[in-house]
Amino acid sequence: MVVVNFKTYAESTGQKAVELAKSAERVHKETKVSMGVAPQLADIATITKAAQIPVFAQHIDPIKPGGFTGHVLADSVKEAGVVGTLINHSERQLKLSDIDKIVNLTREKGLLSCVCANNPSVSVAVAALRPDIIAVEPPELIGTGIPVSKAKPEVVTDTVKLVRKVNSDVVILCGAGISHGEDVAAALKLGTQGVLVASGVVKAKDPYAIMRELAESARS
Amino acid sequence: MVVVNFKTYAESTGQKAVELAKSAERVHKETKVSMGVAPQLADIATITKAAQIPVFAQHIDPIKPGGFTGHVLADSVKEAGVVGTLINHSERQLKLSDIDKIVNLTREKGLLSCVCANNPSVSVAVAALRPDIIAVEPPELIGTGIPVSKAKPEVVTDTVKLVRKVNSDVVILCGAGISHGEDVAAALKLGTQGVLVASGVVKAKDPYAIMRELAESARS
Amino acid sequence: MVVVNFKTYAESTGQKAVELAKSAERVHKETKVSMGVAPQLADIATITKAAQIPVFAQHIDPIKPGGFTGHVLADSVKEAGVVGTLINHSERQLKLSDIDKIVNLTREKGLLSCVCANNPSVSVAVAALRPDIIAVEPPELIGTGIPVSKAKPEVVTDTVKLVRKVNSDVVILCGAGISHGEDVAAALKLGTQGVLVASGVVKAKDPYAIMRELAESARS
Amino acid sequence: MVVVNFKTYAESTGQKAVELAKSAERVHKETKVSMGVAPQLADIATITKAAQIPVFAQHIDPIKPGGFTGHVLADSVKEAGVVGTLINHSERQLKLSDIDKIVNLTREKGLLSCVCANNPSVSVAVAALRPDIIAVEPPELIGTGIPVSKAKPEVVTDTVKLVRKVNSDVVILCGAGISHGEDVAAALKLGTQGVLVASGVVKAKDPYAIMRELAESARS
Repeated sequence: MVVVNFKTYAESTGQKAVELAKSAERVHKETKVSMGVAPQLADIATITKAAQIPVFAQHIDPIKPGGFTGHVLADSVKEAGVVGTLINHSERQLKLSDIDKIVNLTREKGLLSCVCANNPSVSVAVAALRPDIIAVEPPELIGTGIPVSKAKPEVVTDTVKLVRKVNSDVVILCGAGISHGEDVAAALKLGTQGVLVASGVVKAKDPYAIMRELAESARS
Repeated sequence: MVVVNFKTYAESTGQKAVELAKSAERVHKETKVSMGVAPQLADIATITKAAQIPVFAQHIDPIKPGGFTGHVLADSVKEAGVVGTLINHSERQLKLSDIDKIVNLTREKGLLSCVCANNPSVSVAVAALRPDIIAVEPPELIGTGIPVSKAKPEVVTDTVKLVRKVNSDVVILCGAGISHGEDVAAALKLGTQGVLVASGVVKAKDPYAIMRELAESARS
Repeated sequence: MVVVNFKTYAESTGQKAVELAKSAERVHKETKVSMGVAPQLADIATITKAAQIPVFAQHIDPIKPGGFTGHVLADSVKEAGVVGTLINHSERQLKLSDIDKIVNLTREKGLLSCVCANNPSVSVAVAALRPDIIAVEPPELIGTGIPVSKAKPEVVTDTVKLVRKVNSDVVILCGAGISHGEDVAAALKLGTQGVLVASGVVKAKDPYAIMRELAESARS
Repeated sequence: MVVVNFKTYAESTGQKAVELAKSAERVHKETKVSMGVAPQLADIATITKAAQIPVFAQHIDPIKPGGFTGHVLADSVKEAGVVGTLINHSERQLKLSDIDKIVNLTREKGLLSCVCANNPSVSVAVAALRPDIIAVEPPELIGTGIPVSKAKPEVVTDTVKLVRKVNSDVVILCGAGISHGEDVAAALKLGTQGVLVASGVVKAKDPYAIMRELAESARS
């Protein structure tokens, strides 16, 4: 499983986001590897119409319908076609009780929850909330091109070992610095079920080629 | 000028948001009164295609393109078709320096800035940042159906008086509890150029009828 | 173990905070029950000089010495004489990764960590961070005088049961609405090792008498 | 007027904070220049007993007495002996409406308000809230040793010019990178009434000597 977080890069905004999602769809069709994308909120509705691919929100708020200006309602992104949402990304960190509320909300709404964590102990804490997916990402490596699977493999192996003690079925991803096929292969070898990538794909000269390379590695 | 803030009500999410925007468009066509709408982010792209009406974001973040997961990029909502954005709504309050940054961002991007304020002194502070529109709303009246123009007219008149001393061209709106034509008439008489409404329209049995009533009052 | 959170009540500020701490010290001497107090930051240094009693900060920030205006440095409260700190109280909630950082900081500095949680699943998440103490408090009962041990005993028993599966040595307190001896007795019977109290003591006519009653119950 | 912000440096915590405050008191006695200090909360009570010098809190919260764990109550720091408080320092920024509430609180409690601003337009916005003191500090120069009065004199002159248009009696300070007497002289020449300093004093080999130098320059 490869999830591409579009963040708020110029290269993944508006029409460019649609193109990127279509490239991810193409890679999925060619490789059968599960390719998810997490675009910006304003692009979700257009992308879910343009590409047959699992779309995640980058964030939702711990709210039910009501008077909350400028918040992100689960019902809203669901109706726009997402299958799930990232939660607590290191660039959008949340209070612990809000992570709990959002995971419960996603369960109620039939959405997948992918909660991000910055280290093994936080990953175990997250596992206790029983999300569908945990993505461990050391923030200091995000956007660097130095892959976590090489620079800090123990973060990944400790996460897998400790999380598995308390939660046997959560999907574990790792991220930060992933930009080559070998990084994906290493991540899988360390016990994860996939990767969360962003700038390594979005800011690449040829995002399709990179996604294809990541997917090939994930398959083999 | 009437701006309808859709907030995150069930009645103004997804397809229902599109219907609401179309009703606003119809009211505009019938009355020539300027009708703006501020839907949720995931609904913006669909609404700007479905209705010829000024659309505002409910919030944007003080960021330029980059690695900011779960944030709202000005470029993104602009490409989705908004003409401007609400800023610092009482349900999404911001740090002072971030309001300043966002107002500057909207200027750069050719977007209208509508900064909300909770009282006259905060309105004057906001005026110093030179946004296009100031909307003064006493938070304790929001969602109550008790119109600010009747319950706290001095909040509106003090705002107009003090803001005009330092800024002669900013558009001044008032809001909170507005749900009848007479509230709009009162607001205009107190020196504002329009109103910001939300639940009074969104949660009404017949939102079209209410918007029509508000617009008629704004016109006369 | 009884911990009295002074919060920011008028009755527990400045000289009144010192009196309250002395009353807690007296109760400890009379009953041998461990009585901790969590006063406001500006009162800590005076209280630790005036009373021989374990003093907790109400909050510390996830920082090391440096340029952080208006933050609470662990070293600062330690030098002022605290034995530990509350963390993530429902009135001062924190991001998950910050709770993790603060628990690590307290460990480094030889301070006790008492992390608050609002329900059983959040308590288990907290347990994964291995603090010294977990205090479970349903926020909707805080300050009501309706004791958690009577109104929501399942919150307490579920917390004890689930936390014990992953962490056998953490001290578990419960709180919210505790104001009588019988509430303490009930809390202990439900499997906790003590209580966290606030308004039930601070705003009582005779705080000494209430603390004495709570301590008697904790002892028997 | 020279205000020394102690921040949370190791060199200005606990007993070292007391020594620093005593040095500031000595400089005041020797030069008659007004020397204020802003220590950490836990050190305030000790410092106000040890030195005859105006003490500021680094931050207070927009609250009245009540159930607010981990917050800073105006009454609490006042009883500990402060004469005022910093508000909205760039390392502890606040929502606009909270700055307004805190300025009003300080007025009610007879405390001095010193609101920080990062640029001229934010300074003018702050001036509208009518605090006693505005301190303009470009955040990018804070802690660098590059004085604002040299690197960005236009930030200071624009602030003075624009603020004076709307508020003739507020005291204007500038800060960021100030660490020599000539920086103070330059700041005064640009139209300010004093400076806000931090690392330039706190982390100096001989803080007394630096404060003495700053004070001499302020006097001449």
